[in-house]
Amino acid sequence: MPNVHIYKQFDTDLEAVRARVLEMGGLVEEQVGKSIDALISGNVTLAEEVIANDHRVNSLEVACDEACTHIIALRQPTAGDLRMILTIVKTITDLERIGDEASKIARYAVKIFENDRITSPRYTEIKYMAGLANKMLRESLDAFARLDISGAAGVARQDIEVDEEFQKIMRHLITYMMEDPRTISTFIDLLFVVKAIERIGDHAKNMSEYVVFMVKGKDVRHTTIEELERELL
Amino acid sequence: MPNVHIYKQFDTDLEAVRARVLEMGGLVEEQVGKSIDALISGNVTLAEEVIANDHRVNSLEVACDEACTHIIALRQPTAGDLRMILTIVKTITDLERIGDEASKIARYAVKIFENDRITSPRYTEIKYMAGLANKMLRESLDAFARLDISGAAGVARQDIEVDEEFQKIMRHLITYMMEDPRTISTFIDLLFVVKAIERIGDHAKNMSEYVVFMVKGKDVRHTTIEELERELL
Repeated sequence: MPNVHIYKQFDTDLEAVRARVLEMGGLVEEQVGKSIDALISGNVTLAEEVIANDHRVNSLEVACDEACTHIIALRQPTAGDLRMILTIVKTITDLERIGDEASKIARYAVKIFENDRITSPRYTEIKYMAGLANKMLRESLDAFARLDISGAAGVARQDIEVDEEFQKIMRHLITYMMEDPRTISTFIDLLFVVKAIERIGDHAKNMSEYVVFMVKGKDVRHTTIEELERELL
Repeated sequence: MPNVHIYKQFDTDLEAVRARVLEMGGLVEEQVGKSIDALISGNVTLAEEVIANDHRVNSLEVACDEACTHIIALRQPTAGDLRMILTIVKTITDLERIGDEASKIARYAVKIFENDRITSPRYTEIKYMAGLANKMLRESLDAFARLDISGAAGVARQDIEVDEEFQKIMRHLITYMMEDPRTISTFIDLLFVVKAIERIGDHAKNMSEYVVFMVKGKDVRHTTIEELERELL
């Protein structure tokens, strides 16, 4: 529910920066999806597009950051409005780092394709795991857009699943390495891809926790899922 | 140079939160050092101490965050003061994540010691790399404490060295894995330790860039070292 502000200009400024964050979120989600597609299909052009687009993510972060500083200095928000601005400042930091992970995955995609042209038997698993992480990202962005915290525990639970997938894929990759030590380098590259996906999940979880802070004014970053669920009741 | 504020209470509040950040920084630096010591000496008790102390890092983050929100809402800072507060908000996020990496290293230390009791021939290199990363952290904290940006390019340059060390150690670990595939699991754990150290360097570099933003009002997060050096002239 939007508050009615004495200063209409504040609402306009806030809406503008919120729209920017969602634009940045959409771009980052796209970067993640494309980096994984590039890896799986061995599409080097697509991977290079992801790497080239990382600067757009960075520019949006800088622009949002400046807009937030401007709003605080000029409009001097308090309470819920201030929490919203501080949430944005934190959210864009995590979004920028997800962007970094996508561009890291794209660089590995190029390297793996150019060196080895492997068709990894683990790509189905990696695609599934990346789909989970990107779903967490989308749900966190939706929660931010609609100020809706009902999905926060769900995102936290999906993060556990992403971590479990990471462990599972890692065990499989280790088995391949042991069977054929010549593949070790390539599978270690793939391991770092999986690690990057795992981190995307962590960042998405952070973002969903910021939304809880924004809506409830309660810091739930270092709580268990059970505590979080109680908080959301 | 400290500004003279119309509201003396603002200075007092700001000093209190700055002291808190430095306390958090000192604790995090200690956590990193201890986690590496635990790994190298196989001291499980020390590793468990690091893991147990992570909650202290988290609590300091939450406390600093609350203090910053409070200062903005009550004192409505603008210009340099506002930049200082926003710098603190970002700095503590990176400090908290360095704390996470330290506790991750400590968990690997326990696992490696309990499963394998290896004495890795790479521990000298890992110790050297961790020393570099912790030096970056200390220099970033000093820069923050003294509002001194003269070391920012140095920190950025050390980050390149940390990344190079990471690549070098990774290549060595891969050689070991290829020589004796039974060691793959353990050396992958060690690889994640080295990855954690590399990330500590990244976070320290972020922190030193925030100090430049705080002092010069210029966002240098996505610039090259050469651009950064020009900015610092």
